[in-house]
Amino acid sequence: MSEAIAFLPPRPEVLSRRAEILADLKELVPPGRLVEERNALVPFETDGFIAYRRRPLAVVLPETTAQVAAVMKYCHRYGIPVVPRGAGTSLSGGAIPQEDAVVLGLSAMTRILDIDYQNRTATVQAGVTNLAISDAVGADGYFYAPDPSSQLACTIGGNIAMNSGGAHCLKYGVTTNNLLGVKMVLVDGTVVDLGGKHLDAEGYDLLGLVCGSEGQLGVVTEATVRLLAKPEGARPVLFGFDSAEAAGSCVADVIGAGIIPVAIEFMDKPAIEICEAFAKAGYPLDVEALLIIEVEGSEAEMEAMLAAIVEIAKRHGVKTVRESQSATEAALIWKGRKSAFGATGRIADYICMDGTVPLSQLAYVLRKTSEIIDRYGLRVANVFHAGDGNMHPLILYNINDPEDAAKAEAAGMEILKLCVDAGGCLTGEHGVGIEKRDLMLHQFTQVDLDQQMAVRSAFDADWILNPSKVFPLEGRG
Amino acid sequence: MSEAIAFLPPRPEVLSRRAEILADLKELVPPGRLVEERNALVPFETDGFIAYRRRPLAVVLPETTAQVAAVMKYCHRYGIPVVPRGAGTSLSGGAIPQEDAVVLGLSAMTRILDIDYQNRTATVQAGVTNLAISDAVGADGYFYAPDPSSQLACTIGGNIAMNSGGAHCLKYGVTTNNLLGVKMVLVDGTVVDLGGKHLDAEGYDLLGLVCGSEGQLGVVTEATVRLLAKPEGARPVLFGFDSAEAAGSCVADVIGAGIIPVAIEFMDKPAIEICEAFAKAGYPLDVEALLIIEVEGSEAEMEAMLAAIVEIAKRHGVKTVRESQSATEAALIWKGRKSAFGATGRIADYICMDGTVPLSQLAYVLRKTSEIIDRYGLRVANVFHAGDGNMHPLILYNINDPEDAAKAEAAGMEILKLCVDAGGCLTGEHGVGIEKRDLMLHQFTQVDLDQQMAVRSAFDADWILNPSKVFPLEGRG
Repeated sequence: MSEAIAFLPPRPEVLSRRAEILADLKELVPPGRLVEERNALVPFETDGFIAYRRRPLAVVLPETTAQVAAVMKYCHRYGIPVVPRGAGTSLSGGAIPQEDAVVLGLSAMTRILDIDYQNRTATVQAGVTNLAISDAVGADGYFYAPDPSSQLACTIGGNIAMNSGGAHCLKYGVTTNNLLGVKMVLVDGTVVDLGGKHLDAEGYDLLGLVCGSEGQLGVVTEATVRLLAKPEGARPVLFGFDSAEAAGSCVADVIGAGIIPVAIEFMDKPAIEICEAFAKAGYPLDVEALLIIEVEGSEAEMEAMLAAIVEIAKRHGVKTVRESQSATEAALIWKGRKSAFGATGRIADYICMDGTVPLSQLAYVLRKTSEIIDRYGLRVANVFHAGDGNMHPLILYNINDPEDAAKAEAAGMEILKLCVDAGGCLTGEHGVGIEKRDLMLHQFTQVDLDQQMAVRSAFDADWILNPSKVFPLEGRG
Repeated sequence: MSEAIAFLPPRPEVLSRRAEILADLKELVPPGRLVEERNALVPFETDGFIAYRRRPLAVVLPETTAQVAAVMKYCHRYGIPVVPRGAGTSLSGGAIPQEDAVVLGLSAMTRILDIDYQNRTATVQAGVTNLAISDAVGADGYFYAPDPSSQLACTIGGNIAMNSGGAHCLKYGVTTNNLLGVKMVLVDGTVVDLGGKHLDAEGYDLLGLVCGSEGQLGVVTEATVRLLAKPEGARPVLFGFDSAEAAGSCVADVIGAGIIPVAIEFMDKPAIEICEAFAKAGYPLDVEALLIIEVEGSEAEMEAMLAAIVEIAKRHGVKTVRESQSATEAALIWKGRKSAFGATGRIADYICMDGTVPLSQLAYVLRKTSEIIDRYGLRVANVFHAGDGNMHPLILYNINDPEDAAKAEAAGMEILKLCVDAGGCLTGEHGVGIEKRDLMLHQFTQVDLDQQMAVRSAFDADWILNPSKVFPLEGRG
């Protein structure tokens, strides 16, 4: 990849004191929880946005909020940048460190602290994985709704930093809609509690502000999330179309008719072929675009909703309608979709865009994306959360060919600008990180960004938390 | 009422320049949109929290965002406090002005700008009433979900300032869950757009921060909100119990079983009697506590959900179960509930608390509330959104008897502290305003408040927007 995105230059006063800093940090965490050896630091150099990597100063892996607070207090005192990290699955480079930064890894904080069915809440440490929450309550008939495709690995702390979504967020909302409270360590080591088990909260909505703030306002160490009761039944149905535009228009009309299925996922032909080869999910191979629409509820509810959807799909010339006939078939359909990124990675390198558009623009943006990709002579696979308008074009390229990589990056930037110009925005669920940082001025005015940066400064006056991310380096106060 | 809550002293340099300021403001708004006569200012002296009143310097009623921006730019330049106001229905005194403040009334901004069914959004000016949005789209089968009891009068701008709720927010969420974007005038007159028709947004969640910030971060002039499709059917059902605790425990068990009706409203005996006398809604008069539980969906869905609820209610010894038999009966049931505050006002003065508690604490807090009220020799009527844990004890008193008023205020403060100590918070939907300002330190530490105030300063360094509200006067930076 061309190193088109700059990091802040490392602070020389930090680099020169490395030995001393390591000795001090060692005192603050339990034995074995400081990573300092060169080779041991390699896994922390990058995250899911593998095009960029930087070796951090050190990694600490605290086990308690008090240890996190001690590390923050120390780093704040000496002006040492800190990059919080969950499982390192960020697709926008949100957890990529820099040479002068201490990586504050939360992956050792994996305790489930409280499960409370009467209030429908679970309180967990930040390093608990997304799926572990649903696993802990599944036998009792509950689940935690947001379901990123990386849910087996990604942590709730990372989900909060990026306000993560997932296929089922069409009905249940994204992280911010399912988060009730956090314990957070401020930049100077002070510990605060935001929200709780009760509805809403007085004062400013700092909980909402923190959710999606990409680790720049503090380090979340515990989260209280909403549990939901599992539906009576759920059924994914495949709808095949002769064109991407017909599928896109069908989605807009389903939502426009006030019908909200649990999920509406979109795949174009390249994505169908890649996923079917990997998962053998029974996807139709003779169509140009596929929708996976999941309905849930009682048998009668599912049938009524499906009938209404089929009616709309027919108006858009649907070619194939295939209901899953068993739990196994349903699981295969989802396995195919959720492994789309992994399956794509088996055949090519890719970068995954995350632009989000108003639903009425879906068909238009798909057509224009295809034109952009053709112009660069690249290939693209589209697989995304259509019901939310949250697009994920996977641009395929060869990471070892600098020219190809530069083209892919340029095409990606054009596609994101297209989304913004269509009334949408740069990111639906992957965050800005470093990937989209320099596009922020395409979405916002400098006045907008100044206001956001003033808020950031109100939490972290010296900008030591995840400093190279989110805001363009030029134009910072 | 005893004047227990202090306002900031007026700025002498503003009071002394009143004539000049009025002359300048007159240039900034259309003819007739500046209110300056003593008698004409009286309606703007207070809001729904009638215990306190202050005469403002002047009132402006702009018609456009540009006029709001011009007023803000002017007031910012000269350090003149500004108190934004919607319909003046705030129950926490959020719109009560002060002697040196210009009231910036949005009630003339009543245009519906855009209705977009394909993206399921409506964009309206801030002075549009809550109910007017649903009215504008009702014939097409849509509605706007949050429904404060004051929805006939209250404006969407005020709803955003207070993050308003309502009976149906149990299923559909409060304002912040149904708000997609705003146009907002910053303190210096700059106009920014936050959010839009697309899902989520990159950068910090300033939209979420603004929602519920009580007019202290800027003046919202336009809002884009989510429209929902009306359900197939809806049916309120009355459940009568022999004790408030049995009803409270029933609510906790319904929610704990993962059942989410559209609404669960609670009334104790005094509330039942007051509302029945007013609305003739057919409420049972031989019970101590009443739940109005509304289910919606198809006939089969409603029946299935009701059967499950009845089963749980029986375990708590429910005495009466009465389904509405017609649309007229259903409307009467809601009329009774929604006019509870008005009907109470016909028999006594009251202050309305807004504490919110975890559902598991509902029965306990009801019992303790009753003990507190008895100790003060007062009367209380409880009528509230039980499914959310959002309590509304109406403390009855005589506003013309200073001793009675002081007792009512003291009892109210004890009840709010009780809610906080039970793991809840001071306000569910009415906001802090001036009413609960001095209790904020019971909920938060000074560190928490310092952080919130730092955020406020990042928007309004001179604290000219709604300055006496939300934060205790002592301990301000």
